Amino acid sequence: MRVIDQRLLPVRMKWIEIRGADDAFDAIREMKVRGAPLIGVVAAFGAALELRQNHYSKLDDMLADAERVAMKLNSARPTAVNLKWALDRFLETIKESASIEKGKEASLKKAVEIMNYEEETSKRIGEVGEFLIEDGDTILTHCNAGSLATVDYGTALAPVRMAVKKGKKVQMIATETRPALQGARLTTFELMKDRIDVTLISDTMVGYVMSKGMVNKVLVGCDRLLFDGHVINKIGTYQVATMANRHNIPFYVALPWSTVDLNTRLPEVKIEQRSPKEVEMIRGRRIAPKGVKVFNPAFDVTPPELVTAIITDRGILYPPFRNSILEAHERGLSQPVITGES
Amino acid sequence: MRVIDQRLLPVRMKWIEIRGADDAFDAIREMKVRGAPLIGVVAAFGAALELRQNHYSKLDDMLADAERVAMKLNSARPTAVNLKWALDRFLETIKESASIEKGKEASLKKAVEIMNYEEETSKRIGEVGEFLIEDGDTILTHCNAGSLATVDYGTALAPVRMAVKKGKKVQMIATETRPALQGARLTTFELMKDRIDVTLISDTMVGYVMSKGMVNKVLVGCDRLLFDGHVINKIGTYQVATMANRHNIPFYVALPWSTVDLNTRLPEVKIEQRSPKEVEMIRGRRIAPKGVKVFNPAFDVTPPELVTAIITDRGILYPPFRNSILEAHERGLSQPVITGES
Repeated sequence: MRVIDQRLLPVRMKWIEIRGADDAFDAIREMKVRGAPLIGVVAAFGAALELRQNHYSKLDDMLADAERVAMKLNSARPTAVNLKWALDRFLETIKESASIEKGKEASLKKAVEIMNYEEETSKRIGEVGEFLIEDGDTILTHCNAGSLATVDYGTALAPVRMAVKKGKKVQMIATETRPALQGARLTTFELMKDRIDVTLISDTMVGYVMSKGMVNKVLVGCDRLLFDGHVINKIGTYQVATMANRHNIPFYVALPWSTVDLNTRLPEVKIEQRSPKEVEMIRGRRIAPKGVKVFNPAFDVTPPELVTAIITDRGILYPPFRNSILEAHERGLSQPVITGES
Repeated sequence: MRVIDQRLLPVRMKWIEIRGADDAFDAIREMKVRGAPLIGVVAAFGAALELRQNHYSKLDDMLADAERVAMKLNSARPTAVNLKWALDRFLETIKESASIEKGKEASLKKAVEIMNYEEETSKRIGEVGEFLIEDGDTILTHCNAGSLATVDYGTALAPVRMAVKKGKKVQMIATETRPALQGARLTTFELMKDRIDVTLISDTMVGYVMSKGMVNKVLVGCDRLLFDGHVINKIGTYQVATMANRHNIPFYVALPWSTVDLNTRLPEVKIEQRSPKEVEMIRGRRIAPKGVKVFNPAFDVTPPELVTAIITDRGILYPPFRNSILEAHERGLSQPVITGES
């Protein structure tokens, strides 16, 4: 499996090989690949390829190894739920397998299935979310929830791509998204490639552009959606949502159903703390004194009262999200429900 | 006159010479010096030194030249009102002078006077604002309003320095302040030098640290304070104030009286737009695709309802600011009034 090393974009396009669990762990941990759906896919492939290259004498040995691999990969990024979701599917597959050979084969098939699911889902999110986008919209997005975060259309960017395809005129504003600069490096890159109008701003400028009436919608991705509508997403999302709320700008979150976590309550969610280097250095250049103390949480929590609607492959969910999330869960993956707020 | 080229901090400490108006213009325009009080001082010296090295045959020639110099210097950074304030003092001095020699001498004396005023004021702001700081506070600050922005103690950092001097334990959180990174480069540098505890965060992390109860006060500087309490300050201040308001954290603004602008109404304030390079490059490294569209406003506006109190060399001002600002204006520079909110 080959993936792009996203850390080098937009300056350099380098493909890296994922041959097993170590490659996948490294790629996910070091954010060579990022974005909730994509890291799930990479983990599933990494795990399956790991088993394929190892020799086991007993089925139980393979199962024990699969569990070790899954636990390791899951620890690479503790916050995004897709990682756990994909690895749980992988483990189930191994557990259900009657032989070592069948297990190896099935886990690779499962990885392909997860990839296809995310691709299909991405398209569905586009179709569902397109309903909310009007001709002439200027949409602000934070971080990167485009094709580089997923497999195809993206999550937050999928509705935009679909709207543009249908002939709607849409302008985008991308926040640079410190510390890892996914907005500056990846969102602008993707949108410019697709010839979608995009303007880059620093994270400090969100309030200003909103106060000047330059934004009429916000659309972001999600790394974990809780049962009650709490949105765990890239650090800075909470501020963007708060500013949107202050200026009465609709705030939409787009996600595949694999991002929904009905089991965990907010206090149990672990927010990943990353290396101080990401904050005190940018692209290898020091921007702060040596030895400075740094705090570097990778995600924050946006409370449901700041969210206007949630765009999923199962339809558009409106508040109260406790109800609409549970309804969509019960409904399962049928025809998505697309309506305006009732 | 010698000043530090702040763009190179904290990596390199380079002094530059201000010999006349061109040097001053360049230093202010290119943000080698920044911070509302400091650019006023540099402009006053640049203007005075410019006149001193030129030969005039008539007093009127010198006056015309002074007006040209003042207009040019004022255009270097259109938003900070201290620049205009210092240049107005310079022009008044020239106009009141009876001879060319006396004008040259008086304008230099005026520059020294402005510098001393800002130094004295900085100390007074420290003494006034110290009243609001409690032992054990963790204070978040945005941008740099320390000695590097002023002449001595700083504005926002002056009360912190004074509190620490008096034995209060204070921890600081500095936002990096994109695009020009004054927080990462300058605030951390100053505070670490003074052995004041400081933690650096990216601008995206303000909401998170507040939601975690890690901040109990916010203290920022100001580039222009309007008669009705609108605070024009470094881009991103508005978001910080909004997040503080959401979390019931007091939001304080510190400024010398030279930053107060009673004449201009909000719609007339010109917000400086700076080069796209500041956003798409960091320390010479490209962080976004070539040719990306960029929007780069240098300041934003924080409305008075988000401000808890304003710390000035004339005392602490509380809402309604329309009244308290006017009262302090009438009072003039006497003993500052230091009280808690009534």
